[in-house]
Amino acid sequence: MNDITVIIGSSSDEELLKECLKAIDEFGIKREVFLASAHRSPNHLEQIIRDAEKNGTKVFIAIAGKAAHLPGVVASKTVLPVIGVPAYSEELSGLDALFSIVQMPKHIPVGTVCIGKTGAYNAGLLAVSILAVYDERLRKMLVERRKRLEEELRKENENLSKRYNKGS
Amino acid sequence: MNDITVIIGSSSDEELLKECLKAIDEFGIKREVFLASAHRSPNHLEQIIRDAEKNGTKVFIAIAGKAAHLPGVVASKTVLPVIGVPAYSEELSGLDALFSIVQMPKHIPVGTVCIGKTGAYNAGLLAVSILAVYDERLRKMLVERRKRLEEELRKENENLSKRYNKGS
Amino acid sequence: MNDITVIIGSSSDEELLKECLKAIDEFGIKREVFLASAHRSPNHLEQIIRDAEKNGTKVFIAIAGKAAHLPGVVASKTVLPVIGVPAYSEELSGLDALFSIVQMPKHIPVGTVCIGKTGAYNAGLLAVSILAVYDERLRKMLVERRKRLEEELRKENENLSKRYNKGS
Amino acid sequence: MNDITVIIGSSSDEELLKECLKAIDEFGIKREVFLASAHRSPNHLEQIIRDAEKNGTKVFIAIAGKAAHLPGVVASKTVLPVIGVPAYSEELSGLDALFSIVQMPKHIPVGTVCIGKTGAYNAGLLAVSILAVYDERLRKMLVERRKRLEEELRKENENLSKRYNKGS
Amino acid sequence: MNDITVIIGSSSDEELLKECLKAIDEFGIKREVFLASAHRSPNHLEQIIRDAEKNGTKVFIAIAGKAAHLPGVVASKTVLPVIGVPAYSEELSGLDALFSIVQMPKHIPVGTVCIGKTGAYNAGLLAVSILAVYDERLRKMLVERRKRLEEELRKENENLSKRYNKGS
Amino acid sequence: MNDITVIIGSSSDEELLKECLKAIDEFGIKREVFLASAHRSPNHLEQIIRDAEKNGTKVFIAIAGKAAHLPGVVASKTVLPVIGVPAYSEELSGLDALFSIVQMPKHIPVGTVCIGKTGAYNAGLLAVSILAVYDERLRKMLVERRKRLEEELRKENENLSKRYNKGS
Amino acid sequence: MNDITVIIGSSSDEELLKECLKAIDEFGIKREVFLASAHRSPNHLEQIIRDAEKNGTKVFIAIAGKAAHLPGVVASKTVLPVIGVPAYSEELSGLDALFSIVQMPKHIPVGTVCIGKTGAYNAGLLAVSILAVYDERLRKMLVERRKRLEEELRKENENLSKRYNKGS
Amino acid sequence: MNDITVIIGSSSDEELLKECLKAIDEFGIKREVFLASAHRSPNHLEQIIRDAEKNGTKVFIAIAGKAAHLPGVVASKTVLPVIGVPAYSEELSGLDALFSIVQMPKHIPVGTVCIGKTGAYNAGLLAVSILAVYDERLRKMLVERRKRLEEELRKENENLSKRYNKGS
Repeated sequence: MNDITVIIGSSSDEELLKECLKAIDEFGIKREVFLASAHRSPNHLEQIIRDAEKNGTKVFIAIAGKAAHLPGVVASKTVLPVIGVPAYSEELSGLDALFSIVQMPKHIPVGTVCIGKTGAYNAGLLAVSILAVYDERLRKMLVERRKRLEEELRKENENLSKRYNKGS
Repeated sequence: MNDITVIIGSSSDEELLKECLKAIDEFGIKREVFLASAHRSPNHLEQIIRDAEKNGTKVFIAIAGKAAHLPGVVASKTVLPVIGVPAYSEELSGLDALFSIVQMPKHIPVGTVCIGKTGAYNAGLLAVSILAVYDERLRKMLVERRKRLEEELRKENENLSKRYNKGS
Repeated sequence: MNDITVIIGSSSDEELLKECLKAIDEFGIKREVFLASAHRSPNHLEQIIRDAEKNGTKVFIAIAGKAAHLPGVVASKTVLPVIGVPAYSEELSGLDALFSIVQMPKHIPVGTVCIGKTGAYNAGLLAVSILAVYDERLRKMLVERRKRLEEELRKENENLSKRYNKGS
Repeated sequence: MNDITVIIGSSSDEELLKECLKAIDEFGIKREVFLASAHRSPNHLEQIIRDAEKNGTKVFIAIAGKAAHLPGVVASKTVLPVIGVPAYSEELSGLDALFSIVQMPKHIPVGTVCIGKTGAYNAGLLAVSILAVYDERLRKMLVERRKRLEEELRKENENLSKRYNKGS
Repeated sequence: MNDITVIIGSSSDEELLKECLKAIDEFGIKREVFLASAHRSPNHLEQIIRDAEKNGTKVFIAIAGKAAHLPGVVASKTVLPVIGVPAYSEELSGLDALFSIVQMPKHIPVGTVCIGKTGAYNAGLLAVSILAVYDERLRKMLVERRKRLEEELRKENENLSKRYNKGS
Repeated sequence: MNDITVIIGSSSDEELLKECLKAIDEFGIKREVFLASAHRSPNHLEQIIRDAEKNGTKVFIAIAGKAAHLPGVVASKTVLPVIGVPAYSEELSGLDALFSIVQMPKHIPVGTVCIGKTGAYNAGLLAVSILAVYDERLRKMLVERRKRLEEELRKENENLSKRYNKGS
Repeated sequence: MNDITVIIGSSSDEELLKECLKAIDEFGIKREVFLASAHRSPNHLEQIIRDAEKNGTKVFIAIAGKAAHLPGVVASKTVLPVIGVPAYSEELSGLDALFSIVQMPKHIPVGTVCIGKTGAYNAGLLAVSILAVYDERLRKMLVERRKRLEEELRKENENLSKRYNKGS
Repeated sequence: MNDITVIIGSSSDEELLKECLKAIDEFGIKREVFLASAHRSPNHLEQIIRDAEKNGTKVFIAIAGKAAHLPGVVASKTVLPVIGVPAYSEELSGLDALFSIVQMPKHIPVGTVCIGKTGAYNAGLLAVSILAVYDERLRKMLVERRKRLEEELRKENENLSKRYNKGS
C-alpha cells in the first residue's frame, strides 16, 4: 500500500525525484517511486498506474521534461489527482515542459507546479496537502511547519538586520 | 458548510467562474463563491479564507489575471490544496498570469491549470478529483464520466468518418 | 487499405483536417480520417493505430492543439513516420502546441510542421512526399506541381509588375 | 526613523540587496533592511510595513524572484510609493518575476525596474530621486552625479579612442 | 506651475493619456500634458523637460509604444522620478515596449508600470503617491480611496454571492 | 535602370509593399517591384536579382513572413545592401519572421526593420538614406523631412495642449 | 548510392552531425554527409542536392542554427522528404532556428524535430522510419528497438525502485 | 575624415566592437570609434554625431544592450544610415536589446543585425556594403570574399566528407 505514487519520465530526472521525496518523507507518508516513459514504455506506464490504484494510492506526481507528456498521460489513465512537474532543460528553459503539462485539454486536468527543483519539492508538499484534507495529523504537521517557516524567516531577518541596519 | 471555495480576483473573471461552476455543479458538491482581491481587499480575502476553513472547506480554487497573486496569497493563508487558474488577457495572452501563479516559491505550492476558460473548467474537475480521493461516490462518477467522454468521442469519430472516409 | 491516416484530437480541429485533405486528395491517395484524443479516448486511439497499421497505412498525420500530446502518443505506438500539426489557439498562439509536438524525447521523433492551416496543408504534402520516395508517379506529380507553382508565381509577379512598375 | 525601507523575499536575494544599498548609502540616507516573504511570513511582512510607516519611511523597495508577489503585497498594504526589483533566476531568466511585478492590477501600481543587479542598484537610485523631489541637497547630489557619470564616460571614450582610432 | 508632467510619444497614445489623467485629476493635482517624440522631435522634448523643471514639476510620466525610448530619454534629461508606461501594440503585444522601458541601464532608472490602459492609470496613481510622500492631504485621500476600493469589492462580492451561493 | 529593388515573397504581402513604396515614391526615386519566393520560385528569384544588378540597382528590400527566408536568400546572391521586413502573421505575431530575418549567420548580414507596416515604410526610408550617402539632393530632402516631422509633432502637441492643459 | 543525405550548415554543427549518424549507422544504412551553407555556398548546396538525387538518395536531413534557412532551401530544391534540425545557440536558445525551420510557407514543408542533440538523433531515426515504410527489415529493427527501449526502461525502473522503494 | 563611425554604449561592449572592426579593417576603410551613452552622456553623444557628420562619415554603427536606445537615438540625430547591434545579456538573452533596436517607430529606421558577436561582425560588413554601392573597389572585394567563403566551405566539406563518407 502507498499513498503517493511518484513517476519520473527519464533517469535524468532523478535529482528532481530526490527533491520531491525530501518533501514527502518529512511526513512519514507511504510512497512509491517509478520510472516510466509515456513514449518509450507506455505499456509499463499503464501497468504501474493500474497497480498503484489497486494498492490504494491517492495522488500521482509525474515529473518530465521537454515535450513532457508523462503527467498528461497519467491523468488520462486515472481519475485521481495528478500533479505535474516540468523539468528544466537547457534549450527552452523548461518552458516547453511547462506548456506541455499545464495546457491540458478540457476534462483532463493536471495540477502543475513550478519548473525544476523547487517544483519537484512543492509537488511533494501539494500531494501531502491533498492527503491532509482528510488527515488531521498531516494537517497539523503542515500548520506547524508553516509556523516554523515563519519563525525561521524571522530569524533570518534578525540576522540580516544586525548586519545591515547598524545604527538604526 | 461547503467543500470547494472558489475565489475570483475581479468581476471581470465572472465568465471563468461560470465555467468552473459548470464542472463542480455537475457533481452536486457544496461550494461557495467569493470575489476578493489580493491587492485591493486583502483583509476581506483573509476573512473569507478563515471563514471557509471554519466551514470545513476542503479545496480552494483561485482565478486571477495579469500579476495574478490571488492563488499564491490564498496558498499563503491555508494549508489546504489551492488550485490556480490564470485568466487570459489581451496584452500578454495570460502568460503573465501563468508565470505569476505557477512559479510559486519553495514551501507554498499552487496546482496550476491551463489559461482561460478550459483552465477554469479543469480547476473545478481537479478539485472534484481531490474530494474523490476519499469519496467513493464521486470517484465512480468521475470514472463513468471518463467512459461517457470516450463514448462521445467515438461517436464524433463515427460521424466524422462518415463524412470524410467515403469509399474506404 | 489506406496510405495515409489522419487523426485529429478534437472536433474543433476539423478546419485543419480539411486543409490537410486538400493537399492529400489532389494526388488521389487513399487515406482515412479519425477523431481520437490522447487523453479522453486513449484506448480508441490505440485501436485506430493498430487497425491502420493492419490496413497497411504508411504515414500518420496527427493534428492537435494546446498540450498537444496526440502526435507524440501516436509516435509511441507505431514505428511508421508521424507528422505533427500544432493547432493555433488564442491563448498562446499555438506555441504551446508547437513545443508539445516538436520537443519530443530521444528515440520517438515527430516530424513537425508549422502552426495552423498552413501546417495542416503542408503535413499532407509531406506525407505525400514520403509516399513518393517509392512511387514514381507521385514524385512526378510533385515535380510538376513545383513547376506549376513557380509559373503561377511568375504570373503573379507579371501582374504585380504591371501595376507597380509603370515607366520602368 | 528611516527614509527608505528595503525588503527582500529570500536570503538568496542578499546579493541584490547589497547592490541596492550601494546606491542608497552613497547619499547618506537613513534606510532599513528586512527579510520577509509574502507567502512564508505574511504576518511578519505586514508588521514590518506598519512599523516602517510609523517610523516615517517614505519609499519601499521590494526585491523578489520567480512568482515575485512581494512588491505587490507591499503595495497592497501601503499608499507610499513601492519600487519592485525582479530577481534573475535560471529557469525563466527573471521574466516570471518581471511579469509578476510589473503587471499589477488597476489601483495598486508598483514601479518596476530592470531584472537583476542593475535593477537593484537602480531601485536604490529611483528611491533617492523620489526623496529628492523635496530635498534640494539630494537633488544637487543627483545632478552632480550625472555630470560625473558623463565625465567618466568621456574619459572612457578618450581611452578607447586612443587604443582604436590610431591614425584618424 | 504643475506637479506632474505627462508626455506621450505619439498621438496614437491619446487613449492611454486619458486613462492616466483620470487617475491624476481625481486628486485635483496640477498637471501638464505634452506630445513629443524621443526620435522625431528630440529638441522639442528637451525643451519641454527643461520648462517643466523650471515650472516646478515633481514627477514625469512618459507613455510610448514599440521601441519605447521616450521614458528613458526623459530620464536621461532629469533627475526627477520618471514613470514609464508601455503601450500595447498588435505585433508584439507591448512586450517590445515593456523591455525598452524597464531594462534601463545602470544609473538611469525608469519606474515601469504594466502594459496598456491599466498601466497608464496606475502611472497616474504612482505619481500621486510620490507627491503624497510630503503631502498629508494626498496621503489621506489615497488611504480613503483604498478603503473605498475594499468596500466596493465587498459589495461586488455580496452581489456575486447572492447570485451564486444560493442555498449555502 | 532602377535604384531600389523591392521583392515580396507572397501576394499577401502587397499591403506592406504599398507602405514601402509610399516612403520611396515621396523622393521620386526609380524603383522596381517583384514577387518571388525563396522556396517556390527560387530560379526566378535568382534571375530577378541578377537582372536588377545589371540594371544598376543599389539597394534591395525584401519583405516576407513566417520562416521568412527571402531577405537572407537575396543577401546570399548579392553583395549590395539588403533590407529585410518581417511581415506580421497571426500565429507568432511576426516573431518567427523577425528571427528568420535578423539572426542571419556570419558574413551575410540583412539590415532588419520592425515588424509589419511600419517596418515596410521604414525599409523604404532606410533604402533612401543609403542612396543619400552619395546624393546631396536626397540628403537635403531627408533633413527637410525631419524638420517637417518635428514641426508637425509640435503642432500636434499644441493641439493636445489646448485640449488638456486648460488652466495651466 | 546512398539512402540518406545529411547536410550541416556550418562546421560548428559537427557535434549534431555525429548524434544524427549514431542513429542512422545503427541500421547499416548507406548515407552521405555534406557541409554547405544556404547563404555562403548556395551553388555548392544546389549541386550537392542534385548529385544526391542522382545517387538515389531518399531522404534529406539538414541541420542549422540561428536564421536556419538550410532545411527550407533544401526543401525548395527537391520534392523528397526533408527533415530539419534546429541547432542550439546561446543567444535565443535555438528558438530562432526552430521558428526559421518549422514555420515554412505553404507548399514547401520541412519535418522539424526538437532543438539540439536530441533533435539530431531523432532526425536520423525519423529518416530511418521513412525508409522503413517500404523496407521490412528496417521496420522489424525499429520494432525490436522499441521493445529493447521498453525493457531497458523497465530495468532502470527496477534499479530505481530498489534504491527508493525500500519497505514498500 | 572617416567613412564609418562605430559607437558603443558601454565599455562592456568592447568585445563586440573588436568583432565589428575585424570586418571593417579587412577592407582598409577609414573608421572612428567612440563610447557614448544615450542616457548617461547624451550631450557628448550628440557632439560625436555632429563631428562625425562634419568629418564626412557615411554610415553609423551603434552597439548596445538591454534597453538599447543608442542606435535609435543616433538615428534621431542623423539622416545617414544607422546599423544597430543588440548586445547579448544574461537576463533576457539580448531579446530586450533586439526589440529596443528593431522596433523603431515610423520615420526613424535602424537597420538591425543579429544579437551578439556575429551581429557586430555583420554590422561591419553591412556598413562596407553600403559604402560599396558607389565604390567599385569595395564591391569587387566583397564579391571576391564571397567566392573565397564558398571555396573555404567547399574545403571544409571535403575534409568532412573524408572523415565521414568512408566507403561511399
